[in-house]
Amino acid sequence: MKQPIGVIDSGVGGLTVARELMRQLPKETFLYLGDTKRCPYGPRTEEEVRAFTWQMVNYLLRKNMKMLVVACNTATAYTLSELQESLDIPVIGVIDPGARAAIKVSRNKRIGIIGTEGTIESHAYPDALVSIDQKIRVNGLACPPFVPMVEEGILSGPKAERIVSHTLQPLKDRNHIDTLILGCTHYPLIKDLVQKEMGNHIQVISSGEETAREASLILAYHKLLEKNDSTPVHEFYTTGDIEKFRLVANSWFDEPVQILKSIELEHVPSSAY
Amino acid sequence: MKQPIGVIDSGVGGLTVARELMRQLPKETFLYLGDTKRCPYGPRTEEEVRAFTWQMVNYLLRKNMKMLVVACNTATAYTLSELQESLDIPVIGVIDPGARAAIKVSRNKRIGIIGTEGTIESHAYPDALVSIDQKIRVNGLACPPFVPMVEEGILSGPKAERIVSHTLQPLKDRNHIDTLILGCTHYPLIKDLVQKEMGNHIQVISSGEETAREASLILAYHKLLEKNDSTPVHEFYTTGDIEKFRLVANSWFDEPVQILKSIELEHVPSSAY
Repeated sequence: MKQPIGVIDSGVGGLTVARELMRQLPKETFLYLGDTKRCPYGPRTEEEVRAFTWQMVNYLLRKNMKMLVVACNTATAYTLSELQESLDIPVIGVIDPGARAAIKVSRNKRIGIIGTEGTIESHAYPDALVSIDQKIRVNGLACPPFVPMVEEGILSGPKAERIVSHTLQPLKDRNHIDTLILGCTHYPLIKDLVQKEMGNHIQVISSGEETAREASLILAYHKLLEKNDSTPVHEFYTTGDIEKFRLVANSWFDEPVQILKSIELEHVPSSAY
Repeated sequence: MKQPIGVIDSGVGGLTVARELMRQLPKETFLYLGDTKRCPYGPRTEEEVRAFTWQMVNYLLRKNMKMLVVACNTATAYTLSELQESLDIPVIGVIDPGARAAIKVSRNKRIGIIGTEGTIESHAYPDALVSIDQKIRVNGLACPPFVPMVEEGILSGPKAERIVSHTLQPLKDRNHIDTLILGCTHYPLIKDLVQKEMGNHIQVISSGEETAREASLILAYHKLLEKNDSTPVHEFYTTGDIEKFRLVANSWFDEPVQILKSIELEHVPSSAY
């Protein structure tokens, strides 16, 4: 039997990361767990986010996963180091892959980052970038209208263009960035709009694509890559409304979600200890 | 004192990988060893390549390196697994990073790969690509004129354009690739020419850039990243003519090479055992 890879997120945003993981690692089986009921994590305390994340992790550990991807910026910022130290499987988050990709492509060392207010205020991306290269200058911009817009399915057309244009204006007015990191898992769905608004001279980095790329390396490095070519069957779990989740998942994926289960996390232990 | 990262190559080609490593990891110190005297490795037997590679590795192990980058396609193909199993430091090669980057960017799963005759005949890139995704179709093309052209410094102008255009013609005539891997460490120096010849709809992947990106991840993953911001002083070693090496290195790097030493490898043990 194929050993699965766990992907956890506060809700549906991490599905863009799961989609990229499935595309770049087509032999692998994924278990996706979205804590839709308690989403968003952004406004929650660090203690809450840690407790909820551990509940998700402990739930998936019972399913024998060989690797864990934390596909949520907030959960990555608060729990990645702790998970990496506690678990005996590889754990990767969504922040560092985007940072490393930006360092690779930027020529003028001026990098923009857009995300939720929580992610921008956490300074997680600037910290990751500057820890590698102190000469990098980072321009962060919180884009609160983007998540609700994406979740309402407004992904193109004049209204979407207007919102994107208006929200990104402060970033366009500032220093001459040559690279922009999409620091929120919802944003890849409006990547084309952002690219058009910022101009083709800006390299737009999608954290999901980069996280999948790094997951591929870490699996290979640990000799954990699946060799069997048979088509994998992925499983999706949500703590919230199952039909709402299916609607979003089916509109974001090329193929309809097959196995989808509703679960409760409240009674799962919230720490590994 | 900073613990260095070792970079080995059969000659000068790996300098393009070293340049990218220095750009993406500006706090790290690098030791570059080019076996210019016995280069190229392409036409040599597997046994010879393994013996020479082990001599380089054993020479650098005495200098307390924390990581090894095999910046040579031939040496990677023949020795990477063996080195990874034998050494207790992380070891990365140049083949898999290019393959993973191509999988990330390709949308139609048709990937081209250009390299020396040895690299193309070894099937190392197609093997790496297909082991991850069996639906990928690979078009390999050996480009023998490119290495001598680059080493003679013919990097632009009508003659260079004519050679590139003529050499790449078979690849342009074949299936519709959307991604092309530069599978030889000399080729990044003519990346712009290749891009122009293939057209802007083709994504050109430079193995050196991708190897540096993956080195950055592996260092972070093992908590080996240098924290000290002081400017590193890199060291270069060659088994061949020191002035010829300096000439090439200085024309490829933005800053002149400082510490450059001539060494003999013939008396270094050729295996770890």
